[in-house]
Amino acid sequence: MSTFLVRGARVLTMNDALHVLDGDVLVQGGVIAAVGPDLTAPPGVAVIDGADHYLMPGLIQPHIHLCQTLFRHEAEGRPLLAWLRERIWPLEGAHTPESLARSCELGLAELLLSGTTTLLDMGTVHHQDAVFETAAAWGVRGAFGKAMMDVGEGVPATLRESTQRSLDESLRLGRTWHGADNDRLRYAFAPRFVLSCSAALQQEVGRLSAAEGYLVHTHASEHREEVALIERLHGMRNVHLLHSYGLCSPRSVFAHGVQLDADERRILRDTGTSICHCPSSNLKLGSGIADVLTLLREGVNVAIGADGAPCNNGLDAFVEMRLAHLLQGPKHGAGALTPVEVLRLATRGGAKALGWEERVGSLEPGKDADMVLLRRNDPRLGLGSDPYTEIVCAGTRDLVRRVWVRGRLLVDEGTLVQHDLDGLLHSGRRALDETLRRAGLAA
Amino acid sequence: MSTFLVRGARVLTMNDALHVLDGDVLVQGGVIAAVGPDLTAPPGVAVIDGADHYLMPGLIQPHIHLCQTLFRHEAEGRPLLAWLRERIWPLEGAHTPESLARSCELGLAELLLSGTTTLLDMGTVHHQDAVFETAAAWGVRGAFGKAMMDVGEGVPATLRESTQRSLDESLRLGRTWHGADNDRLRYAFAPRFVLSCSAALQQEVGRLSAAEGYLVHTHASEHREEVALIERLHGMRNVHLLHSYGLCSPRSVFAHGVQLDADERRILRDTGTSICHCPSSNLKLGSGIADVLTLLREGVNVAIGADGAPCNNGLDAFVEMRLAHLLQGPKHGAGALTPVEVLRLATRGGAKALGWEERVGSLEPGKDADMVLLRRNDPRLGLGSDPYTEIVCAGTRDLVRRVWVRGRLLVDEGTLVQHDLDGLLHSGRRALDETLRRAGLAA
Repeated sequence: MSTFLVRGARVLTMNDALHVLDGDVLVQGGVIAAVGPDLTAPPGVAVIDGADHYLMPGLIQPHIHLCQTLFRHEAEGRPLLAWLRERIWPLEGAHTPESLARSCELGLAELLLSGTTTLLDMGTVHHQDAVFETAAAWGVRGAFGKAMMDVGEGVPATLRESTQRSLDESLRLGRTWHGADNDRLRYAFAPRFVLSCSAALQQEVGRLSAAEGYLVHTHASEHREEVALIERLHGMRNVHLLHSYGLCSPRSVFAHGVQLDADERRILRDTGTSICHCPSSNLKLGSGIADVLTLLREGVNVAIGADGAPCNNGLDAFVEMRLAHLLQGPKHGAGALTPVEVLRLATRGGAKALGWEERVGSLEPGKDADMVLLRRNDPRLGLGSDPYTEIVCAGTRDLVRRVWVRGRLLVDEGTLVQHDLDGLLHSGRRALDETLRRAGLAA
Repeated sequence: MSTFLVRGARVLTMNDALHVLDGDVLVQGGVIAAVGPDLTAPPGVAVIDGADHYLMPGLIQPHIHLCQTLFRHEAEGRPLLAWLRERIWPLEGAHTPESLARSCELGLAELLLSGTTTLLDMGTVHHQDAVFETAAAWGVRGAFGKAMMDVGEGVPATLRESTQRSLDESLRLGRTWHGADNDRLRYAFAPRFVLSCSAALQQEVGRLSAAEGYLVHTHASEHREEVALIERLHGMRNVHLLHSYGLCSPRSVFAHGVQLDADERRILRDTGTSICHCPSSNLKLGSGIADVLTLLREGVNVAIGADGAPCNNGLDAFVEMRLAHLLQGPKHGAGALTPVEVLRLATRGGAKALGWEERVGSLEPGKDADMVLLRRNDPRLGLGSDPYTEIVCAGTRDLVRRVWVRGRLLVDEGTLVQHDLDGLLHSGRRALDETLRRAGLAA
């Protein structure tokens, strides 16, 4: 049923004019046909009661590691490089296609139940087809790519690959999956970060991204320790180095951007490179607080993402939005990053980062019906003041009632339509136990 | 029904040994009679199935303003002093007993639904009986006090009172309410902060606190602008000044403590004064990040509180615990404030701050049954690793199923036993509209 009318909701369009209206949204064949007051439902079209609800665009998170969801709480108390070398890499290296699929399911369940409909995901090095197969079945929208790792201190043998194999496998995956299900799934190159990728690999990724049109998804300027090591090894700051490889472009999304100087911000702006701000993750690993407000003022596109479960410890966009709002306070003053701007980052900012603006990020006729219906009649959300403040500052996952991607209902009455959490819990526990054992990290 | 057995939960006792067991808790007449595996329910005693749940002490928040809950989202984008003068004080000054009761109900609903069973609350200047009456009816445990404000720039006529009236009214309230319902409710002096209280008032509060045994609840060292103004007016830093008035003692709880130097931390430790850390509020008003880890290392007792809804924008202890954990990361490193320590602050730390350790803060025989039953069978909480990490880093209000205070069931199946949120929403909206109008702040 991808043709229906949502009647009588408070609609946050997130269009250029930030139009908010009490009215209806008509979806036909998964596409938004009309937005307005008092629409007429064509004969036979189901009508969904939106009274006492917000209807808003699905949230977009352009930095997620579904492959790590299984490892939630399994890498506590470590800064970035130790977190990677001691826990995350050995665990990723121990994934089988089966455990990877369980990890992706746990992550997608969490994302959908908290209103995220589109993600940019970084896989692990191997078994990337399992990620695509899971995403294909679950109905989420996203760009996905296998992690590329051909060099690097502390990279386990289970993950290190040759430069050629990394490129070949990425291209095979791109040919297989890019544009799948009528362009619901896309491919994104994912050179993990400068410290795990050779110059040759990164240069070739830059060339192929321009040739094939795939996104480039990497980490940059996250932790002090990381950027110091990069500068020592390469004599250059992180973004300068990425730029020298041809990796700064409108097709590029850099996660984090905590440690940026003015020159690096200028490169990001001039090249149209997006930053995905990951506030929880940056606090969790002790990286710091990204200066989002300065990035925005200088014209850099910014989006918001939860990163992976082990550095968060969840994937809930409501949590990240609230934190993004709050964290700019100490440096820039109370309310410096306004709630409406935060919701813009989590919708339009994400859509722009992914080059997917023509289809998602706002509720406008002609765009796909990626939408969230959020219960408003709860005094903890607010008593009816500014909708952006209600959603960004007080919104919570338990208010999410329905979620659609391209008009397909994936969450109904706050519950996954096709899956049950109990089953995911049990299969997840088994997969985690087995993966810890394979990694030699079982307690 | 304050006699029952909870069977088969994972019990986080939060006792000195941090004992965690899979077992049972027997409550008799509101008091914990036994904690252990395989307890026998006495004849006729109801048994509650705790399988797949955590049972933990009720959370304790020793810095809340119930009177401000009505003003959630109504004071956005302002630093502390402007926030007070332009919005919060005029709004508090427009409260009637009726609107104040509605505000308290909204706050208590939110606190109980998210597992907080004990609070230290600062009222507004007038109508404090309405706060006590509401708390008495709702069954929560707490210490409450009317705000004291006898001087100060920007204090509206609706709130300013004479020194004598402030003291007399506080003492009347103490005599009326302290120890009510078998010591479920207590009185706490609440000189608002140095900038709204005369030296004479504060000195007398110090003397009376020692004589009557009432707590002293105030704000200290919150915002740069505030402490600079105090230093300019009094030639002394905030905690030194409070100490000179006799307000530092084991009966004192200072909210915030963001702007503290080493001398001030030493005074807090030496006098046994507690700090209530309010992480969301400190970010929201642009105050900064309290150095909780240093306070703890130096021996200061620390608790965690949400402050008021307009500077948060909620009252959820799970949100504050997660943030307290995360915020120490950038300065002190990943995981510096561990989850178990955060949960200790939110239970034992709060109990100690309130001088209520003999009754609450842990699940031990002889203490009152202030308890929270939290659903565990959700993969978003975790797959069964460290319980403290699960609760502090991934715990959410929607997992709270039952809440008891002194064995009285106040939340059942995630819903208030005696009240409904729809009714609170509607009466709250009306009360807010009327209060905004009285304050001359209606849109």
